Amino acid sequence: MTNSLKIGVAGLGTVGVEVARLLAEKGPLLAARSGRPVELVGVSARDRNKDRGIDLSNATWFDDALALARDPSIDVFVELIGGEDGIALASVTEALGARKHVITANKALLARHGNELAQSAEDNMVSLGFEAAVAGGIPIIKTIRESLAANCVTRVFGILNGTCNYILTRMEKEDLSFEAVLKDAQNLGYAEADPTFDIGGHDTAHKLAILTSLAFGTRINSDSIYVEGIEAVATADIKAADNLGYRIKLLGVAVATDSGIEQRVHPTLVEKSSQIAQIDGVTNAVVIDGDIVGEILLAGPGAGGSATASAILGDVADIAAGTIRTPLGRPAAELKQYQNARMRAHEGGYFIRLNVYDRPGAFAAIASRMAEQDISLEHILQHQDDQDVVSGRQSVTLVTHETLEENVRMALAAIREDGHIDNQPQMIRIER
Amino acid sequence: MTNSLKIGVAGLGTVGVEVARLLAEKGPLLAARSGRPVELVGVSARDRNKDRGIDLSNATWFDDALALARDPSIDVFVELIGGEDGIALASVTEALGARKHVITANKALLARHGNELAQSAEDNMVSLGFEAAVAGGIPIIKTIRESLAANCVTRVFGILNGTCNYILTRMEKEDLSFEAVLKDAQNLGYAEADPTFDIGGHDTAHKLAILTSLAFGTRINSDSIYVEGIEAVATADIKAADNLGYRIKLLGVAVATDSGIEQRVHPTLVEKSSQIAQIDGVTNAVVIDGDIVGEILLAGPGAGGSATASAILGDVADIAAGTIRTPLGRPAAELKQYQNARMRAHEGGYFIRLNVYDRPGAFAAIASRMAEQDISLEHILQHQDDQDVVSGRQSVTLVTHETLEENVRMALAAIREDGHIDNQPQMIRIER
Repeated sequence: MTNSLKIGVAGLGTVGVEVARLLAEKGPLLAARSGRPVELVGVSARDRNKDRGIDLSNATWFDDALALARDPSIDVFVELIGGEDGIALASVTEALGARKHVITANKALLARHGNELAQSAEDNMVSLGFEAAVAGGIPIIKTIRESLAANCVTRVFGILNGTCNYILTRMEKEDLSFEAVLKDAQNLGYAEADPTFDIGGHDTAHKLAILTSLAFGTRINSDSIYVEGIEAVATADIKAADNLGYRIKLLGVAVATDSGIEQRVHPTLVEKSSQIAQIDGVTNAVVIDGDIVGEILLAGPGAGGSATASAILGDVADIAAGTIRTPLGRPAAELKQYQNARMRAHEGGYFIRLNVYDRPGAFAAIASRMAEQDISLEHILQHQDDQDVVSGRQSVTLVTHETLEENVRMALAAIREDGHIDNQPQMIRIER
Repeated sequence: MTNSLKIGVAGLGTVGVEVARLLAEKGPLLAARSGRPVELVGVSARDRNKDRGIDLSNATWFDDALALARDPSIDVFVELIGGEDGIALASVTEALGARKHVITANKALLARHGNELAQSAEDNMVSLGFEAAVAGGIPIIKTIRESLAANCVTRVFGILNGTCNYILTRMEKEDLSFEAVLKDAQNLGYAEADPTFDIGGHDTAHKLAILTSLAFGTRINSDSIYVEGIEAVATADIKAADNLGYRIKLLGVAVATDSGIEQRVHPTLVEKSSQIAQIDGVTNAVVIDGDIVGEILLAGPGAGGSATASAILGDVADIAAGTIRTPLGRPAAELKQYQNARMRAHEGGYFIRLNVYDRPGAFAAIASRMAEQDISLEHILQHQDDQDVVSGRQSVTLVTHETLEENVRMALAAIREDGHIDNQPQMIRIER
């Protein structure tokens, strides 16, 4: 019998407990599929005495994750501590240096330090698995890195945060405000008490940074991502988009352009007939455009203890089977410098919603400001309800043909300057 | 520099030519991603002098695929000859015996001989790659075998034949008959001159047989698949299904039940709101229900030279990276005997469409026949158009709650016997 693969798990929150439980329950299956027994031999967490509902008596307890990371008894260090620096970074660094394979679900850590950690894994000839860090149970890392190895990816985009998609889905289906759904999501445990990280788009940005590197062979660069959250999406936007044949999703998008790579996270109009538009609730989905294969979509549960544990155990099986792939798809030293495309140079369609004062000449002025910037319009939707009549305003929705973001921003600034609208105009990008 | 991985390609049809072309064009990318150069060194096909539009002068020509399969100059034998026996089987067997890695897109070969070929690959410690054999460019093999290694799959199903999905999609969207769309599909090259293999469900069955083995750890068994094609699907069925909130898709479904494994291929009603219902045209999609991860969907191009070549080159990259996984996910000798569940024992919902003579007592008789078999009904839809009035018939659509197939068949036989309907009743299974 082959020597078993010995696993140490640092961090015993929801995911860590699930991984520990499944290593026992699924041990025989993992052994059958990978050709090598796997076993949990060490764990580390803050509170030794907490009842976690599982029997950990066969695993050695470490008060210090660093000690577990370097302990000779383990072959694989599973980091589920969290945080982009601190003990997570220190223990992963320590484990790689001690020639342990590392598996992590920590997107913040990878978004910040992924290049160096990948380099260290290569130097030490060990694996750095992070399937669980992006889109939970969806096998997006292996798909881009291995299955699509011969493809040049031209674009990758997706719904990478379940909380945001849950909120937008309920806003649409139940005609509720952002604030109302957020509150309910917090009560149901779908959103954190401080939801900023999710709804502000930052979690999506971390995941996107990792996908971008794999897709385009560039160094991970999470500082250059343009990020807008979903806080400003109004039900009026969702309804107007619906009338025009679109849904609104928070997407992370990475595209190779002539001037560099666009990495952007923002609310996005997607055509109702598209597959990504069908992804509802907490489900995640990623679309990859490959130059050989065409368009592939992967959808599934993007978070939660089980889905995350499933991905981690897939990485465990790879290691047990003796598979060590270069973490970022090519040697870290060969990754290209990331070159950022400026958002002002982004070309695309735009959805614009304005509250226009109901007075002569207002439309003509708006139309001429758009024309000045060479923006041609695909749709104009004018809507006035009872409340608008009282307030003396009209809601006007415009959809532009492909145009430069810079021009849209300039036109909107001029329209605002003219004084025909009563607030900041809403501008949402369209992805086709 | 590492020794290059030397590839031989047997069969230079659309896919073979694309693989040869891409091995040259994408060589550097594959080397960067897998850590080892790859090169095409040998080819084999029937006609040496045919102009295939690519330069093959750097590859040695073999008139005989068997000679290429055993030639010391190659490390990997790519079989794109086709056919479940004959030269395809002989050359793959020869290559494995000569310790060459094998990659094939040949689902018929694997459906028939996959167990033995997997065993031979294991015995010879080489890889047998077949990502291209199921759902083209979609990485379904790696996903089930590797990413979901810790999951017990409870069900796998999908749209595995682009021709059928293209026909059903156009029938629905353009209100055209099966015959009319088939003819058009043949003219456009989406269907073969003899389309039986596709539209009869046999191609789907071959692919399903492979997925079933990977999903449930059983020996491949393609003889026990219940197969119905799409020939009998009428536009009246599609319309009635639409009214009830369903679309009709040809699905391959494998489910573990108490009495064994159901493997079935048949037209299926799927809820319009489901993701699989959104898969239109020649696109393929596979849904996997895993006990840990939940439901995952993968969608993309299921056929064509490029998508198939993309999958083949993914397998090449795995071999170049030194990854050898047990072909069927666990050792062939450990695969469980396949135990077939009888279709009569299938439990599910049923859509039934009857042409009922418009006379007193007909409905009562039908309803009592259903009741005799303990079948309870979810929907009854009665429809009479001008033509029906002339013919003295009514179209009646029934949707049952979960029930046994045996009972449905017996009820329909009795209804037919009673003489209240004018033809064979239509019965389509529902998948939820």
